Amino acid sequence: MAPKYKLTYFNVRGRAELARLIFAAAGVEFEDARVDGAQWAAIKETAPMGQLPLLEVDGKTMCQSTAIFRYAAKETGLSGKPGWEEAQADMLVCGMEDLFIKLVTAHFEKDEAKKEELKKELVTFVPQFFGNYEKLCGPDGFFVGSSLTYADLAFFAGTHNILKERADALENFPKLAKVIENVKDNKGVAAYIAERPDTAV
Amino acid sequence: MAPKYKLTYFNVRGRAELARLIFAAAGVEFEDARVDGAQWAAIKETAPMGQLPLLEVDGKTMCQSTAIFRYAAKETGLSGKPGWEEAQADMLVCGMEDLFIKLVTAHFEKDEAKKEELKKELVTFVPQFFGNYEKLCGPDGFFVGSSLTYADLAFFAGTHNILKERADALENFPKLAKVIENVKDNKGVAAYIAERPDTAV
Repeated sequence: MAPKYKLTYFNVRGRAELARLIFAAAGVEFEDARVDGAQWAAIKETAPMGQLPLLEVDGKTMCQSTAIFRYAAKETGLSGKPGWEEAQADMLVCGMEDLFIKLVTAHFEKDEAKKEELKKELVTFVPQFFGNYEKLCGPDGFFVGSSLTYADLAFFAGTHNILKERADALENFPKLAKVIENVKDNKGVAAYIAERPDTAV
Repeated sequence: MAPKYKLTYFNVRGRAELARLIFAAAGVEFEDARVDGAQWAAIKETAPMGQLPLLEVDGKTMCQSTAIFRYAAKETGLSGKPGWEEAQADMLVCGMEDLFIKLVTAHFEKDEAKKEELKKELVTFVPQFFGNYEKLCGPDGFFVGSSLTYADLAFFAGTHNILKERADALENFPKLAKVIENVKDNKGVAAYIAERPDTAV
């Protein structure tokens, strides 16, 4: 019997969206449980590390978003070929965390002057980051191998807000632009995106 | 032929120590290349994401410390059984990052008042963190399964400074204390520790 997956997180993309995209891309059913603060407070004590997201698999629970991504990718065949290819996908997914932290820090900064400074830093950081990823990407818009892996999905998830603000942000990075196209071309992803709530982060 | 591993990082434990411990515990030879600022500046341009640590395997290069840990653990048989056990080890290794960030932030804080505040927060955070890990640990002092994995090594590496400052920090966490013993009992680890440079972080 196919495993029963339940992913619990807040109603934002944040640290769960890549897991949702992995299941969607693989055409694997999962319960997309989105909780509010009160619901989370009620279950927090039972969480292994007191944190969200949580992934339940046939009643067993795990946490730590990036470990969830890897597990979901392995189970659904989206982690890349075992060995060096899988390690490369892992490296690229981990690297997205560097961008995520910078984007989230700027987004949530309350001091306006500091926020402007952080946004200014991003103007330099983002193209450098894209430059590295462009070099690491395969010629057909797949980061590793010749088909979709969760590294492609991670890039798509992690650049959502950048591309929303500036649709031409990838104009100098043709391979990365192709990654975004390839992800959007996936039927499961397209169906999921058409239905998902529109959230700020 | 056995792969040729070269790990490049600064002369500190930091974000490379777990990789060193994995190779040591598995009895796998690796070149422990420790560079200074000038040496790093000379090779930075060639690094995939402009960051250390770097792992070279038969001339191919990867970065991102946590991806390196997983790759090294997989290749040396220390990642736990494929599937749920491996995911649990991964989760525990990822969780150590939460502690690492807090310890490093407090360590490098220059403002004395802020530093005191961060250290005070650690007094509450660390026992809570240990409480979670104690619950997640197996009865014999192995986090997953019944033998050493890189989750045990990660706990050992990540608590080095805490246990250096307060040798009794694990007195209420008998399973975690056993993890530390199990790691120290590993001959490869013991030999490596006897030789490694003593650094602050």
